[in-house]
Amino acid sequence: MKRYLLKISFDGTNYHGWQRQPNGITVQEVLEDKISDIVKSKTVVHGCSRTDAGVHAKEFYCHFDVSDNIPKTAFTLGLNSCLPDDISVLDCIEVGSDFHARFNALGKRYTYRFYFGNKNPFYDRYALRLETKPDINKMNEFCNLVVGEHDFYGFSSSKRSVTDTVRTVSECNVSFNGDFLEFNITADGFLYNMVRILAGTSLFVGYRKLDADVSNKIFFNKDRSLGGDTLVAKGLTLSEVFYDLR
Amino acid sequence: MKRYLLKISFDGTNYHGWQRQPNGITVQEVLEDKISDIVKSKTVVHGCSRTDAGVHAKEFYCHFDVSDNIPKTAFTLGLNSCLPDDISVLDCIEVGSDFHARFNALGKRYTYRFYFGNKNPFYDRYALRLETKPDINKMNEFCNLVVGEHDFYGFSSSKRSVTDTVRTVSECNVSFNGDFLEFNITADGFLYNMVRILAGTSLFVGYRKLDADVSNKIFFNKDRSLGGDTLVAKGLTLSEVFYDLR
Repeated sequence: MKRYLLKISFDGTNYHGWQRQPNGITVQEVLEDKISDIVKSKTVVHGCSRTDAGVHAKEFYCHFDVSDNIPKTAFTLGLNSCLPDDISVLDCIEVGSDFHARFNALGKRYTYRFYFGNKNPFYDRYALRLETKPDINKMNEFCNLVVGEHDFYGFSSSKRSVTDTVRTVSECNVSFNGDFLEFNITADGFLYNMVRILAGTSLFVGYRKLDADVSNKIFFNKDRSLGGDTLVAKGLTLSEVFYDLR
Repeated sequence: MKRYLLKISFDGTNYHGWQRQPNGITVQEVLEDKISDIVKSKTVVHGCSRTDAGVHAKEFYCHFDVSDNIPKTAFTLGLNSCLPDDISVLDCIEVGSDFHARFNALGKRYTYRFYFGNKNPFYDRYALRLETKPDINKMNEFCNLVVGEHDFYGFSSSKRSVTDTVRTVSECNVSFNGDFLEFNITADGFLYNMVRILAGTSLFVGYRKLDADVSNKIFFNKDRSLGGDTLVAKGLTLSEVFYDLR
């Protein structure tokens, strides 16, 4: 057997997230079905994270095991030729038999996009439209306070599945990229809805509905109700996953 | 009665083009239904052009008549709030009762987009993926020969609906815009499939399957079979429509 790490990209609009589930099509299901067809054997694919319905991935990794005689191109050219247009294989890397797409991930980077003005059909699948520009400096004041090791319990949904809610954020900032205002965050791990709640709270700070140091109150009190809204999924993109692949 | 000129934008992926038809949902149908709901009276909307299934519009204009007592905001804020995410109203302008979205259009600009390398789910709705880069200089040699007044009969589909096939192209060129290679063309009018055939022929020239001066042969012989492929609709965007609105 060989273990392959697949680097893919997907537009999440039409999927109920990554993880296979009974009520709706998921990226995992599509990928497992196509790979199983190619190798003519039921194959399980392990993803680097769950993603919510409607969330996009500029890059996403998953691993699976196949017998030695199947060439790597079956999972690049071959798989790409039968995947729908909204999922694409970017690379296929052979890894050791103990490698795990989720547990070997050192960290991830997410981007939440906003745009302004009239509804734009070409932006609206990937970004949240705002009527007025928030105060970017205020948002970055909030972002700076998010960087570091904190207990993000109060910045996660009650549907969180873990008990250890401490995470280390190495980057958090807001900046313009073309027509988009982007909220970027890199951390060693993320809790359920953490990015969408942090982005929503930064927006409340930008609109002066909350003070920038609300972060400290939420870290201390572990109280979700002190923050801003959980923003809609379509604005969120998993933009990078970090591994040590030497 | 008042006549309004509506400036809209749409992602054409899920539509069978602009024009209402029995076998599939169209942009005209969606717009007419929503406007009729708003004004509580069956309303006909006249578009600036037909567009093929899957073609996008960064801007598209259409006009319709409504009774005097309905405020303009009903067709900006009001209409936008009930349209699907892939159609958006950008502006609503009151025009004279003899204005016609199609016959008053002085010209239009289309953009055909290409991208390179791996399939990219975020580009693939709006651009045609190419494996290798064509010779851009060769493509522009061809484009330069297209500029001017010519008989574009041989650059149109046999499904063309007009007898006068002479058009004046004021701009035709190929250039990079970020990750995209863009074929841009502006003319006083376009024949059926004209942009997709011209873009396809420019690509054949870029891959040295045809000489740049094939344009002259096609103008002279009016022979569609001398040109390149008709490229797929998804890469094509109507990017500008010109009016004299003083």
